[in-house]
Amino acid sequence: MYIAMNRFKVTKETGEIFEQLWKTRESHLDELPGFVAFHLLKGPEREDHILYSSHTVWQSFADFENWTKSEQFRKSHANAGSSAIRPLYLGHPEFEGFHVLQEMLASPKTEAA
Amino acid sequence: MYIAMNRFKVTKETGEIFEQLWKTRESHLDELPGFVAFHLLKGPEREDHILYSSHTVWQSFADFENWTKSEQFRKSHANAGSSAIRPLYLGHPEFEGFHVLQEMLASPKTEAA
Repeated sequence: MYIAMNRFKVTKETGEIFEQLWKTRESHLDELPGFVAFHLLKGPEREDHILYSSHTVWQSFADFENWTKSEQFRKSHANAGSSAIRPLYLGHPEFEGFHVLQEMLASPKTEAA
Repeated sequence: MYIAMNRFKVTKETGEIFEQLWKTRESHLDELPGFVAFHLLKGPEREDHILYSSHTVWQSFADFENWTKSEQFRKSHANAGSSAIRPLYLGHPEFEGFHVLQEMLASPKTEAA
């Protein structure tokens, strides 16, 4: 499994607009082989920004790579540098890719007697 | 849903030892209410370190808070500052907590005809 993350430092004034843009966007991730899950995350507030992070989970690194070469990727990122979005965050989004080394899932709980 | 992350900058020489320590540790997360999943992640290699991250997913922020007050938490972190582990990474682990704002899961795929 592979998780592609982007970290965004969003100014406090524009946090709500940033969230709204993500929530209302058209996503094509589900059309791609190996797509597992997507999460938009809101992290800690710091002096001059709020940290947001987007996580896209893929079955494998190869699935992630295929996505970056896809038409869906091109469409999703066509507006990323547009003047409407740029002023919402400080600097550039920071990309970090992670390989999953260990996974533990909650075991199914049985009702207490 | 809430994700508790810790980021570790591990020196390249000690990456394997660091991974081994995580993989062989005794985990008590599954004993706690609201535990969803744990992942140990290996991120990008940088000039003087490899970035690792641990992700613990909870059903709610309250479940995460309960864990931090639990006996299981105390046990897990009793060795975190010990002389055996400290030299494996640069500086301190960096904690970041994230609230999940949006979740999209892969839809079940049907076999092509």
